[in-house]
Amino acid sequence: MNFIKEQIEIIKEKDPAIKSNFEVLLYPFFKVIIYYKISHYFYNKKHFFIARYLSEKAKRKTGIEIHPGAIIGKGLFIDHGTGVVIGETAVIGDNVTILHGVTLGGRGMQKGKRHPTVGNNVFIGSGAKVLGNIKIGDNAKIGANAVILKDVPENATVVGVPGKIVKIRNT
Amino acid sequence: MNFIKEQIEIIKEKDPAIKSNFEVLLYPFFKVIIYYKISHYFYNKKHFFIARYLSEKAKRKTGIEIHPGAIIGKGLFIDHGTGVVIGETAVIGDNVTILHGVTLGGRGMQKGKRHPTVGNNVFIGSGAKVLGNIKIGDNAKIGANAVILKDVPENATVVGVPGKIVKIRNT
Amino acid sequence: MNFIKEQIEIIKEKDPAIKSNFEVLLYPFFKVIIYYKISHYFYNKKHFFIARYLSEKAKRKTGIEIHPGAIIGKGLFIDHGTGVVIGETAVIGDNVTILHGVTLGGRGMQKGKRHPTVGNNVFIGSGAKVLGNIKIGDNAKIGANAVILKDVPENATVVGVPGKIVKIRNT
Repeated sequence: MNFIKEQIEIIKEKDPAIKSNFEVLLYPFFKVIIYYKISHYFYNKKHFFIARYLSEKAKRKTGIEIHPGAIIGKGLFIDHGTGVVIGETAVIGDNVTILHGVTLGGRGMQKGKRHPTVGNNVFIGSGAKVLGNIKIGDNAKIGANAVILKDVPENATVVGVPGKIVKIRNT
Repeated sequence: MNFIKEQIEIIKEKDPAIKSNFEVLLYPFFKVIIYYKISHYFYNKKHFFIARYLSEKAKRKTGIEIHPGAIIGKGLFIDHGTGVVIGETAVIGDNVTILHGVTLGGRGMQKGKRHPTVGNNVFIGSGAKVLGNIKIGDNAKIGANAVILKDVPENATVVGVPGKIVKIRNT
Repeated sequence: MNFIKEQIEIIKEKDPAIKSNFEVLLYPFFKVIIYYKISHYFYNKKHFFIARYLSEKAKRKTGIEIHPGAIIGKGLFIDHGTGVVIGETAVIGDNVTILHGVTLGGRGMQKGKRHPTVGNNVFIGSGAKVLGNIKIGDNAKIGANAVILKDVPENATVVGVPGKIVKIRNT
């Protein structure tokens, strides 16, 4: 039940539209993160078919597709979520916020590690595509509909197609 | 039944692919606008949980997420619709057309009015993200995948990431 | 059963994440292409309502919307697929790969042929919008979130909003 409390805290902290604790049950993210935890368990046991079956089922229910192989830190929040795709070798740090339409995807047909590694406290705006085995530094912000094909430094704000750094915050 | 007739007229007027009146029943927009009307009623009565429950259910069925708090004028048409997100404090005028993948969303964590106000006869192309408490003037056109973070004047056509005015039509 | 074998070959060839033949059953594309073949049959017989009913049903299950009127060549692969919209008069060549969030759509309210014609071996990245009665040449590559409003020559790579040619490969 700790897990559910934690999810309630995350969602209440990150979405100003929420009105009550019960509403957390309605968030597609709440559903998909439970499916992910189970599918990731099966993936690690090399039960790939059941793992993918569960992730596809979660996607049908929520519009959010998280490959069971992805590695996800604490405090992730995916808002709305329709169209989100997170690839098999993506790695996500702690306290990351991802909006609907975001892809953490591959480029072409490489094998092995082919999806992004996202640092802590990163914010990725709606519709952004982050593609290839690149690193997104801690505290980076990625704008809506941006296309990111290169590493992004810590504390940077990146927008546009292709993404350009428009600000690096001092900390 | 007036309402259904009205929807048939809107969809027949706006989609050249439609072949018969019955086909209107297949449009996800037809479904989602009925759900919205009910959920908006409950929202105004401050029954927030049932309101959000209905809007989430509509989203699962249609891919279109309209927060029950949004205020929507007459003659809205959302074509295709997968991935559309309309935020709690968004206001939409009359005769607006919105395509799939469009967001009328917020920026960061403000409280209060934090989503766009869209004028009459506005067209918003597929994948466009309109973010923050900004105003989109009457008759404006927003291009596919554009990102709009500032007010858009009446009769303007805006494209790109971030959006730039490419034309202001005389009327 | 030939058809199923063929689909297995296509998906195994194009997705490095697949682990076994059975996994093909989980791909939304596998489902949607079967629905498309049936709905296209009814469309050609002018049973438009049943055709559209099937395509809408497929969309609800997969997130992929293929109008029954679209004409599709051999070896198409749609990966992930949520948010894909393929219009009534779109024509797709052989061995085309399309990612999630792609639109082959119209512009405004023309009648007749109003959607793109896509050549052979074309790759269209996630979130790209290809709009209007335009031609995408053989072997072209279209970048993620690109907006394509004009013809694209053979062997070209096009990125950005609006799309610009960044490379033409010699062959």
